[in-house]
Amino acid sequence: MTEPMNRALLPAGLHDVLPREAAFEATIVERLMAEFASNGFERVKPPLIEFEASLLSGPGAAMATQTFRLMDPVSQRMLAIRPDMTLQVARIATTRLANEPRPLRLSYGGQVLRVKGSQLRPERQFGQVGVELIGTLQPTADAEVVLLAYRALKAAGVTNISVDLNVPTLVSSVCRGLDLPEDETFRLRQALDRKDAAEVAAVGGKAADLLTGMMGASGPADRAIELLAALDLPETAEADRRRLNEVVRLIRTAAPELMLTVDPVEHRGFEYQTGISFTLFSRGVRGELGRGGRYRAGGKAPAGDNGSSLSGEPATGFTLYLDTVLRAVPDPAPIPKVFLPIGTDPTEGERLRAEGWVTVRALDALDDPAAEARRLRCTHVFAGGQILSAV
Amino acid sequence: MTEPMNRALLPAGLHDVLPREAAFEATIVERLMAEFASNGFERVKPPLIEFEASLLSGPGAAMATQTFRLMDPVSQRMLAIRPDMTLQVARIATTRLANEPRPLRLSYGGQVLRVKGSQLRPERQFGQVGVELIGTLQPTADAEVVLLAYRALKAAGVTNISVDLNVPTLVSSVCRGLDLPEDETFRLRQALDRKDAAEVAAVGGKAADLLTGMMGASGPADRAIELLAALDLPETAEADRRRLNEVVRLIRTAAPELMLTVDPVEHRGFEYQTGISFTLFSRGVRGELGRGGRYRAGGKAPAGDNGSSLSGEPATGFTLYLDTVLRAVPDPAPIPKVFLPIGTDPTEGERLRAEGWVTVRALDALDDPAAEARRLRCTHVFAGGQILSAV
Repeated sequence: MTEPMNRALLPAGLHDVLPREAAFEATIVERLMAEFASNGFERVKPPLIEFEASLLSGPGAAMATQTFRLMDPVSQRMLAIRPDMTLQVARIATTRLANEPRPLRLSYGGQVLRVKGSQLRPERQFGQVGVELIGTLQPTADAEVVLLAYRALKAAGVTNISVDLNVPTLVSSVCRGLDLPEDETFRLRQALDRKDAAEVAAVGGKAADLLTGMMGASGPADRAIELLAALDLPETAEADRRRLNEVVRLIRTAAPELMLTVDPVEHRGFEYQTGISFTLFSRGVRGELGRGGRYRAGGKAPAGDNGSSLSGEPATGFTLYLDTVLRAVPDPAPIPKVFLPIGTDPTEGERLRAEGWVTVRALDALDDPAAEARRLRCTHVFAGGQILSAV
Repeated sequence: MTEPMNRALLPAGLHDVLPREAAFEATIVERLMAEFASNGFERVKPPLIEFEASLLSGPGAAMATQTFRLMDPVSQRMLAIRPDMTLQVARIATTRLANEPRPLRLSYGGQVLRVKGSQLRPERQFGQVGVELIGTLQPTADAEVVLLAYRALKAAGVTNISVDLNVPTLVSSVCRGLDLPEDETFRLRQALDRKDAAEVAAVGGKAADLLTGMMGASGPADRAIELLAALDLPETAEADRRRLNEVVRLIRTAAPELMLTVDPVEHRGFEYQTGISFTLFSRGVRGELGRGGRYRAGGKAPAGDNGSSLSGEPATGFTLYLDTVLRAVPDPAPIPKVFLPIGTDPTEGERLRAEGWVTVRALDALDDPAAEARRLRCTHVFAGGQILSAV
């Protein structure tokens, strides 16, 4: 549709969502939230803006360049518009809900704003919905959130869902176990991020063979687990491997039909994750549906490894990106609309709406209600106590 | 609950909405939006921020002091966080949806932010939900939005709803008809705003008797209509009176049980309204549930009277204030939660959720699942294929 007036101009990356799409988006959000709720995840709703100092502290610091800031004339302090809701939910869990029994299951859904869109996601405002499961280190918790994400997406109508499991701490566990110097580990990390097998072999030193083996294990979960089991990992990596095995087993048992892959060397985008992490895809749909994984809720500093010295509560969870989810869901069926001419008994309208019809009231007396129904894009017209097709 | 850490501190007027309340709020919003949708009002979703120049132009200028502003590093222009959604919806209607057939029925629901709370509404972030009916001057449209507000609030669980109808243009129509000088009209307006009958008599000049009579008509709708009919209003006020009569008749016919009052001299808060306006209350609940009325959508300047010279499309609509609506709705019934010990067949969980239960999965094997269920505030525990009370 054209934009006849300049007033229609919006800043880049911001959009008006128009009739059918806006209702559809709301329906999908409510379907996801309903699935979270019926699995015991209770909704919280943090505010859109907070003090910059609290929103961008700790792990939030990584979002600083992505965050809109503004002055609060009331407190005379800087505020920030949330670029992400997960930090807010972790804050709520570890402060206001600090005395609630653990594990604590929370869910959230809302809008976030970012200063700049990314290449993959040019939108600067988008919806996030997700859950956090806080206060437990159990692999059953890792499996529960993966399975919940899968089932909620399925309930929302997404098909061909796949989950890629990662252990972003595994490479550093291996390098630590082999006493690799830090600079060598760093160069290895970069080579792995590029999936550059030749470079991994060249700079890997005594870790080269193992990491090449780990790279090769990447793929379907059962095969990956088998290949990883055959590797002679150092003792420091044993906990990561055991947990991965257990989480894969739990997911495969509960949802054998789910396409599950494992990439044991991936860590990009999981810099703040402290254990099993995952990315959700729908085959053929551009971009990620969402991602999640282990972290520390309320920890003061970004976590660099999975040692027990980490501050904060053990937690896991996921966030779904609504724009991608909407691309992965089939278009909604058109809703039949029935036009009610002037004089229609109001109780008839009530009855029709209770039956699931959308009703549109006439505001004028009309000679040809069917023509007016068509003009207003109604599919039906109510006449003589009956619903007639208007098309 | 106490706030053990400083990180929990939020700016004045901003709040975390915690578990039960957040879910309840979302349910109420969806119930209202569902009522709007089934009456043919289609949802739109404008962005949280816009260019300041477009958001605060025309009637938006009145909100300027209430609006958070921020710099957009991308466009290098000032943005504003929306203090209100109605202007955005009018913008969408008159630009992107300019070619859609009229009357156009739109609905919206979302969060708005204001720089300062008011005495009645200290919150600086709150939810707005509402509708706009654009492109018609028919009294049937005025009646439709009043009745929709009433029915949607009723569907959301609000009781003792009352509607106060106003004609904010009526006093100036009368004064114009009697050729009252502008300064006299202004003083009269002030006296009427204070409901100061003595002052109205003193400064009213030749309008004193009529306006005293109009003040006295204020009250239950049928009586107000009768008293107004007995007044010898100038010809200039006849259109306003006729429309009020017709709107009252339509509302009384469709919802005779609705508490309907008329205040023919009220205009505070309706400075931008161009005709029949209304405020929604629930008896015994502090504050307004919402308000609405006639305006011009897409008009360039604030409208001062109801002359046909007004720019923009004729429109009416209403906004509900979610904080007040939530105070007017009875607390939700607690949802039964059933605890599923480790080893529970996943299909049993699915079956229970489909039946409306909330399920909470055990993450550890337990000797006493009922005790764990109680600790996690579950009402029931699943054991031996049965749901048992845990309390």
